[in-house]
Amino acid sequence: MTVKKPGGLAGIEAGETAISTVGKNGLGLTYRGYAIEDLAEHGSFEETAYLLIRGKLPNVDELAAYRRKLAAASSLPEPLRRILELLPADAHPMEVLQVGCTALGTMEPETESRTAADIADRLLAATGPMLLHWYHYHRQGEAEETPGAEPELLKADTDDGADPQADATADAASGSSESAAEDAFDMDNYTVAGHFLYLLHGRHAEHIAVRVFDISLILYAEHEFNASTFAARVTASTLSNYYSSIATGIGTLRGNLHGGANEAVMELITQFDTPEEAAAATRARLAAKQLIMGFGHRVYTVSDPRSDIIKKWSETLSLWAEDSHLYPVSEAVEHVMRQEKNLFPNLDFYSASAYHFLGIPTSMFTPIFVVSRITGWTAHVMEQRQNNRLIRPTAAYVGPESLPWLAMHERR
Amino acid sequence: MTVKKPGGLAGIEAGETAISTVGKNGLGLTYRGYAIEDLAEHGSFEETAYLLIRGKLPNVDELAAYRRKLAAASSLPEPLRRILELLPADAHPMEVLQVGCTALGTMEPETESRTAADIADRLLAATGPMLLHWYHYHRQGEAEETPGAEPELLKADTDDGADPQADATADAASGSSESAAEDAFDMDNYTVAGHFLYLLHGRHAEHIAVRVFDISLILYAEHEFNASTFAARVTASTLSNYYSSIATGIGTLRGNLHGGANEAVMELITQFDTPEEAAAATRARLAAKQLIMGFGHRVYTVSDPRSDIIKKWSETLSLWAEDSHLYPVSEAVEHVMRQEKNLFPNLDFYSASAYHFLGIPTSMFTPIFVVSRITGWTAHVMEQRQNNRLIRPTAAYVGPESLPWLAMHERR
Repeated sequence: MTVKKPGGLAGIEAGETAISTVGKNGLGLTYRGYAIEDLAEHGSFEETAYLLIRGKLPNVDELAAYRRKLAAASSLPEPLRRILELLPADAHPMEVLQVGCTALGTMEPETESRTAADIADRLLAATGPMLLHWYHYHRQGEAEETPGAEPELLKADTDDGADPQADATADAASGSSESAAEDAFDMDNYTVAGHFLYLLHGRHAEHIAVRVFDISLILYAEHEFNASTFAARVTASTLSNYYSSIATGIGTLRGNLHGGANEAVMELITQFDTPEEAAAATRARLAAKQLIMGFGHRVYTVSDPRSDIIKKWSETLSLWAEDSHLYPVSEAVEHVMRQEKNLFPNLDFYSASAYHFLGIPTSMFTPIFVVSRITGWTAHVMEQRQNNRLIRPTAAYVGPESLPWLAMHERR
Repeated sequence: MTVKKPGGLAGIEAGETAISTVGKNGLGLTYRGYAIEDLAEHGSFEETAYLLIRGKLPNVDELAAYRRKLAAASSLPEPLRRILELLPADAHPMEVLQVGCTALGTMEPETESRTAADIADRLLAATGPMLLHWYHYHRQGEAEETPGAEPELLKADTDDGADPQADATADAASGSSESAAEDAFDMDNYTVAGHFLYLLHGRHAEHIAVRVFDISLILYAEHEFNASTFAARVTASTLSNYYSSIATGIGTLRGNLHGGANEAVMELITQFDTPEEAAAATRARLAAKQLIMGFGHRVYTVSDPRSDIIKKWSETLSLWAEDSHLYPVSEAVEHVMRQEKNLFPNLDFYSASAYHFLGIPTSMFTPIFVVSRITGWTAHVMEQRQNNRLIRPTAAYVGPESLPWLAMHERR
């Protein structure tokens, strides 16, 4: 155990894990021993979730049963819908998820028969619907007109006649689901990614869109003792309940130095009209010592293996969405960052443009990270519980020495 | 920086703090330099909160203004009341607080003009009312009959003709506020402690009850890098918002190895009819290697200075409440723990009987801890932000070496 640098527990081993490696031991990024490259190329998000939560890759029957379980877990209890509707239209989406997950915990508490793994599955399937119920409710008036918010609607026949490409390039800030009533999600082919995009846009997304979104969920699923996961383990270490660890994870992920970074990247790259402008502005920001989000990593030192994967898909989606602007702008920023600071893009950087090409509003980027990371948080909470010790460090005291009491009249 | 023992970051300095000492440097427990003994003897919870959040003891005018601010901040927005009513009657009270605080965050978000300190004051005053609104709503039907839940009611004249002693010894599980409609809280003499007891019982509590409750809030207010505070700092370190750190604090405090301990103590001591039975049962549990909650501490090694204070008050309250049972039972357990394990009681142990004598239901013990600890959490969030570095440790990897990908048909 070596201390590289004081503060932030950088380089301090805070415990053991068998869940993932982050750039260590020559293993790159692995989830339970499987390389992220293999998972992203051959696997699905549901297989990744099963692997992380249950410790093995599912076989054909297990995967089919798992998808059925998730599909059934995607509808929301009525009181939860009412609670989501009582939250303001301008609430921060991460707070919406925090209220939603915690409120669900009061309705479906953890018990011996409803385990952390069961609740994880429930949240994997229900978190997107929570967000989108709140989103559409405030943007379209009655929630009953929203696809997917009503489980009954989901069971109707499928009629996917929409043009997803037009949708993918639509203004990211506007939900468009006019065709909602005619259309219903194909629950027999449920995937978390496909269901989310369906609920967002009110129609089935194209295969490429679902696949890239699925891959992004794989990439975001787990990352060792990152801040939100570590905080969730601290919560678990007091023997608190599962939902509390998830609430901690959501609240910690939100910050711009963590999950909020992908939204910060989007805010950056949409400011530039051309690659040339992006390059000049990035140089100017660096000169002014401003932070450029989406680059470098505390643990990775040479590159982020996830970035290589999502960058390729962001480029593919830019062609599919016929966007000739945002991808070149992103590459220009990357080029300057490598040239000037020798910094590599991390997962957040090209995820931003990829999500944008999928027609996802920027404010949903970090909530989507939650949907994915629930799997990693859950694996870590279960691991923490298996061999628990209260996580309680100490602090160096730098405050005043012992002070005599000051009676009220003596105080200034 | 020395590592005493692997796991749980025990003995690891995770950062610096100027807020409190816990048994270090010969200072005992101090809040910003002031001894806990002085604060508990001469101070009030509002002075303690002001000291922790604003860094100095308030003078006469500042304290009066602060109490007025808190009094005004104790009423709940209508949508928040509706949300609390939608939570089930059997919800865990800590989840009720988590939903309540997070939902309030969507309605009154942190901004440049509504700072963390302002929101802390709001939560100090509103957290008890949230809990008690939910509690009375489900136990008495219409919330409109609950005192304090409706701010209008609180402004009516005071008529405190109830017998608090009878109330203090009443069954802790039953709220009793039949006289609610005739009675209203004296907002001109607002204290967090007095308001809470008023809302709970529907009448003004006796001075001794308010004072002891006030002291217990002082004792629980702050304790360096305990698990909930440390977790709240991890949340703050990603540059997340203030409410998220509080949600982390609540979820982490809940566990039995932390804030939940005072409830576990109560469950223990109410099982015994006599001191002799308590002593014998404690010996039997120790022989069976069962954990007895409320004893020892990771940081304190000889005694917990807070325990000496609350023990004295628990004894006083036992006389006031004419209870000749629970205090001697508690002393019998303490005696065995000292004799057999050389362990001292911590704050949680005698807080349990003290709260019971005040007529507080056991399920509210940890929520009360929240009301108090909001002050410490806030001080630490503000301190973390002043000199922030992302808290992101690393882990020792003990999982499988690199595994080849398994195609679906190869999986068992």
